[in-house]
Amino acid sequence: MTRDVGIGIVGYGMMGRAHAYGYTLAPRIRALPCTPRLRVISGRTADAVARAASSYGVERSTTDWRDVVNDPQVDIVDVCTPPGTHAEIVEASVAAGKAVLCEKPLAVDHSSAVAAANAAAAAGVPNAIGFNYRRLPALALMKQLVDEGRVGDVLLWRGVWLSDEFLDPDIPFDWRFERAVGASTIADLGAHLVDLALWMVGEVDTVAAQSETFTRERSGRAVDVDEASSGLLRFATGARGALELARVCARRPCDFFVEVNGTRGTLRFEYPNLNELWFGDRGDDDELYGFRRIRAEHESHPYARDWWPIGQGVGYGVTFVNQAADLLERWPNGPWEPDLAQGARVQAVCEALERAAAEERWVRVDEVTGEPTPATTTS
Amino acid sequence: MTRDVGIGIVGYGMMGRAHAYGYTLAPRIRALPCTPRLRVISGRTADAVARAASSYGVERSTTDWRDVVNDPQVDIVDVCTPPGTHAEIVEASVAAGKAVLCEKPLAVDHSSAVAAANAAAAAGVPNAIGFNYRRLPALALMKQLVDEGRVGDVLLWRGVWLSDEFLDPDIPFDWRFERAVGASTIADLGAHLVDLALWMVGEVDTVAAQSETFTRERSGRAVDVDEASSGLLRFATGARGALELARVCARRPCDFFVEVNGTRGTLRFEYPNLNELWFGDRGDDDELYGFRRIRAEHESHPYARDWWPIGQGVGYGVTFVNQAADLLERWPNGPWEPDLAQGARVQAVCEALERAAAEERWVRVDEVTGEPTPATTTS
Amino acid sequence: MTRDVGIGIVGYGMMGRAHAYGYTLAPRIRALPCTPRLRVISGRTADAVARAASSYGVERSTTDWRDVVNDPQVDIVDVCTPPGTHAEIVEASVAAGKAVLCEKPLAVDHSSAVAAANAAAAAGVPNAIGFNYRRLPALALMKQLVDEGRVGDVLLWRGVWLSDEFLDPDIPFDWRFERAVGASTIADLGAHLVDLALWMVGEVDTVAAQSETFTRERSGRAVDVDEASSGLLRFATGARGALELARVCARRPCDFFVEVNGTRGTLRFEYPNLNELWFGDRGDDDELYGFRRIRAEHESHPYARDWWPIGQGVGYGVTFVNQAADLLERWPNGPWEPDLAQGARVQAVCEALERAAAEERWVRVDEVTGEPTPATTTS
Amino acid sequence: MTRDVGIGIVGYGMMGRAHAYGYTLAPRIRALPCTPRLRVISGRTADAVARAASSYGVERSTTDWRDVVNDPQVDIVDVCTPPGTHAEIVEASVAAGKAVLCEKPLAVDHSSAVAAANAAAAAGVPNAIGFNYRRLPALALMKQLVDEGRVGDVLLWRGVWLSDEFLDPDIPFDWRFERAVGASTIADLGAHLVDLALWMVGEVDTVAAQSETFTRERSGRAVDVDEASSGLLRFATGARGALELARVCARRPCDFFVEVNGTRGTLRFEYPNLNELWFGDRGDDDELYGFRRIRAEHESHPYARDWWPIGQGVGYGVTFVNQAADLLERWPNGPWEPDLAQGARVQAVCEALERAAAEERWVRVDEVTGEPTPATTTS
Repeated sequence: MTRDVGIGIVGYGMMGRAHAYGYTLAPRIRALPCTPRLRVISGRTADAVARAASSYGVERSTTDWRDVVNDPQVDIVDVCTPPGTHAEIVEASVAAGKAVLCEKPLAVDHSSAVAAANAAAAAGVPNAIGFNYRRLPALALMKQLVDEGRVGDVLLWRGVWLSDEFLDPDIPFDWRFERAVGASTIADLGAHLVDLALWMVGEVDTVAAQSETFTRERSGRAVDVDEASSGLLRFATGARGALELARVCARRPCDFFVEVNGTRGTLRFEYPNLNELWFGDRGDDDELYGFRRIRAEHESHPYARDWWPIGQGVGYGVTFVNQAADLLERWPNGPWEPDLAQGARVQAVCEALERAAAEERWVRVDEVTGEPTPATTTS
Repeated sequence: MTRDVGIGIVGYGMMGRAHAYGYTLAPRIRALPCTPRLRVISGRTADAVARAASSYGVERSTTDWRDVVNDPQVDIVDVCTPPGTHAEIVEASVAAGKAVLCEKPLAVDHSSAVAAANAAAAAGVPNAIGFNYRRLPALALMKQLVDEGRVGDVLLWRGVWLSDEFLDPDIPFDWRFERAVGASTIADLGAHLVDLALWMVGEVDTVAAQSETFTRERSGRAVDVDEASSGLLRFATGARGALELARVCARRPCDFFVEVNGTRGTLRFEYPNLNELWFGDRGDDDELYGFRRIRAEHESHPYARDWWPIGQGVGYGVTFVNQAADLLERWPNGPWEPDLAQGARVQAVCEALERAAAEERWVRVDEVTGEPTPATTTS
Repeated sequence: MTRDVGIGIVGYGMMGRAHAYGYTLAPRIRALPCTPRLRVISGRTADAVARAASSYGVERSTTDWRDVVNDPQVDIVDVCTPPGTHAEIVEASVAAGKAVLCEKPLAVDHSSAVAAANAAAAAGVPNAIGFNYRRLPALALMKQLVDEGRVGDVLLWRGVWLSDEFLDPDIPFDWRFERAVGASTIADLGAHLVDLALWMVGEVDTVAAQSETFTRERSGRAVDVDEASSGLLRFATGARGALELARVCARRPCDFFVEVNGTRGTLRFEYPNLNELWFGDRGDDDELYGFRRIRAEHESHPYARDWWPIGQGVGYGVTFVNQAADLLERWPNGPWEPDLAQGARVQAVCEALERAAAEERWVRVDEVTGEPTPATTTS
Repeated sequence: MTRDVGIGIVGYGMMGRAHAYGYTLAPRIRALPCTPRLRVISGRTADAVARAASSYGVERSTTDWRDVVNDPQVDIVDVCTPPGTHAEIVEASVAAGKAVLCEKPLAVDHSSAVAAANAAAAAGVPNAIGFNYRRLPALALMKQLVDEGRVGDVLLWRGVWLSDEFLDPDIPFDWRFERAVGASTIADLGAHLVDLALWMVGEVDTVAAQSETFTRERSGRAVDVDEASSGLLRFATGARGALELARVCARRPCDFFVEVNGTRGTLRFEYPNLNELWFGDRGDDDELYGFRRIRAEHESHPYARDWWPIGQGVGYGVTFVNQAADLLERWPNGPWEPDLAQGARVQAVCEALERAAAEERWVRVDEVTGEPTPATTTS
């Protein structure tokens, strides 16, 4: 028999739902040392959060997030609120001795992110940032192939994220259009891509960027969130990168693409076909010149044994289940990864991009962090 | 508060797991009139089925499937055993007054399938056959677009299912290679495609077919299951079809493809990219001649509101969750669809294909059923 | 200096144009032992054929095809008329001692095809049938990889050809709808696929088929050409095949697909992306499970050195240039391939398919040829 | 009868060959007011250029490009030498009263480009720059759809060009690695993408960029050409852009991608499948949410009537044939487009990118041109 671990979720929107889904299924895909219990979920509107609790399989609901943090049955606080509230809830949670999983981005500015990460480290609790796409099988395989040296030394990295969620100028103002609450697009969408870049390639040293907001007013209120940003990256290894984030791309629902080019090969991931990974291998016979479309579901692949036979396909939900299973597997001692410190490192790059766009100049990431970027060998 | 409905699962292999997964999640995606309780699961090996019960979230396990059927806590018997055992378990279940969901194919021959379907009908219990792909959003959308007349009158249908599961001649003999237990490939893989054909196009009238087994002996035992079959179909409407099923296709994990060509348009589904549906519309502006790649996740699409925002993608597992939700939503009165009678209709076509291959001649489906195919208007 | 070789083209439609294009460019892609001179082109309408001559770069035009055959400046007669006229023109040409390249299909029935092939053989002139797709780089590479044993022994072959050219019931009657002139769809489109099958897999032994014509009357005249046909093939090696040809598929302009599955691998070609070839290799590392998308333009690939650097792409026209170059390279002695005898062998399979469809039974190809199919080893 | 126009080609490499191919075929695809005669081709190595003349169908060869320029039979000088020589040859040609078609880039720096363009304008001769991809049917269709307002106002543009031509560090030094001869990668590959951007979106105002050379020495000589560059673009309309050019991408032969996102729709072109154009239309029925894969070969599409029936596909070579036909169609008066002035405008953007990369700052294009960018309405 395994011991129970109490989960409290702060925020009942799509992310709260996805995280609850993760805890519900984690014990169904893997033998875990503990049994997650969804104890409580919070939200501002009493009847809506009560319905969510019932729908998500959570035992009770509350309108006060501090109820979640202080609930003695709660061992892990799972933060799924808008970005601007993350840091405060994280700090309160770790102060209460709770482990914490925080949705990305960790904060809407770097100093808050660092404060939250430091508080968690000081409290000595397991802590994690919700970069769920690391748990997508094809992206986990991409990382594995990079680490195996399949592409050699990485020379170039590119990441593009295109959606149409802000394209219609008639969408009324809501918190997503207010940077202090919803974070910039650089921080919100960009955090995922920057995390993948740091994870696979290493630290970013210097950046340039531009940002634009085409619809600058909604419902009579000023929009201060960028709708489209693009950036140039220099990695500490000497690799170069290019990044684009845009929410004004017609008929692009949520299409992201990541590619690395190395001395030995190329890897490319396309989210619209998320069970595939493309690999161009210089070591291949010239007669077979091209890319392999790897079906990232082979039993030898990351996470594959927990799911369906090859060819069947998984979707977005799997990232939350894998994330919950990975964290619960290391309960209660951790460490968890990626942790909040990684969340803060990503935030530093995002803030450097924001600053570079605002000031129209190249910005070193250590201008944001106040610390030199860790030295790494130039490729 | 909703009333509980007790589920008993017979068979703890991959299908048992997938069905348990469906019941676990169904209440998480939709408000249901009842709460599924996974009461019991059966299998022949005590410790393995006990582990499965724990892993799948089922309360208890047993080595005797009759325990499941006779358990007073069980309202629905879910049959996930090898095909050759389906009919007997279904008959016992409905005799015990239980509702039944039976994995496909309903049986390994048409007469057993009809007997099982008739028993269920006579018992007056809700009953369903597990054609889960009908609940894949893109295929449900395909059906919807056909029904809306988007392709006009269907002229041609084609379905192809390619896997490599039997390619290696060194795979040892197991029940899948014994037709009386595992069913023919025509009935096993073909049942899905034939169901989709009947669902979208209508009854099949006459068929021709061929079958081949390249590795005729495994572990010293004769293999009597076809490894590759192909067939020609004539629908009652006058439409024509072509079908292929093969388990000897290298590096094809489980790739199936369905296409209809009608007087107004073409629809094509490709399982390797299961969140997409391709639509060629004759009504389109000629300047845009081509196919639309529909992202079958729009909130206006079947099942989409129960899942993630558009662009995120779902996988195979969703079919079992949608299936469970669709059935539980109509608990306790039903009717459920597709029902076992549909399972028998599909079996009739499969058996006609088997007979056509064996006898090297065109076979009318009513030779199998003993009843004339229902008349339908010629397109 | 190379000697001139005089070309006479019979027929100035799209095929006549494509062949002229081939001769124009052949000396530009390869050093040839002779220089093709486009001497004369024939057609029934004087001013139209005159304009075509000017446009295609042919020296003179005539309304009588016998003028072409008898022109002393003509060394090669290139037959680009409707199918029903091919055999007669071929026979007249070889009787006049001319070499001949005949568009496919060689005839509209097998006996005429054999007569034409035999006449050419008896005359001892170089002769070829226009299966131009053999000269598409990706298909030539497919053949090469099959011959190298990359897929092992072929178990399954499938070919599908889908167009929309006959879908609109308001297209007025023309010669394409009259079998005696335009040939059946089985013979017209099917000839290409059957040739590829015979070329890569070997002789076909037995077939079943069905055919349908949905619009049976146009401009008040009966249509006797099949609009959609499908067939099952048994190869002499024991391999099995499936074939489909249809001209009623909305928004399918001319999409053909060929796949072979062998004991070691799978190869797939898709004409809509004609510079690619897909290869699934069982010998591959499991971690890379999937298909390679080969860019069939590497300098090591067939025809690639004659064209552009890799990645640039070629189109349909290249098949006619490569064909012309391959034939002229062997001028004046030949032998040319595929020759008219191969055209007749293909026609035998097509006629067996037609008969199988008409008589609703399996038909042996030797019923058509009157000779046993050459023995080949069973795989 | 049409009058002859004499063509002289300077440079017999791949580009010289492609241009000769274009003139050879132009009269075969379109009725032209003149007949191109390939009079002379020049190159430094006598026997090689003599062989090229024979192979390309040019009447004579010379080792002195001034022979071409001064040949009285030559009406059009076609400049296909390495970039660093373009401007001088153009100036000599127009001084001799010849029309000129110059391969891109027009020069290796902006001031030479302007001088060449001005010289041509002053001479009053027809002049053109070889942005051949404008003549690729799918890209011409993309422009047409943008001009028709199908995407509304353009908000974002992105272009990426990936090849592996410089990846191998063991490739010996040649002129491509010397900026003064081969031009920067920004100018060489980038010129095509920048031209497409200016053509479809309008003037570029300001840029940022980075460049890297991973292999800085070859054959003991310093390489001063960038192997990989990326840039950010601000258009005068307010649209934003992102650009990447890289020659170190394993198994990427020559893959370029262009996308525009506008207020009404998205258009995307992918060179690896060059007969297709992707269009996401916000005006579409939501039930069909997605992209259309347009087959850019419909007879209503640009250039399509000159080529093959839809579905057959064209390749790279078609761009040179269409280019030759477009220019010859306007012989002898012109004007031709894109002209050398457009070549200079593109060069200005490329030079701004080079400067931005070198100086690590945002650079206004008018810093390069010395003239304000033409005002355009902000979208």
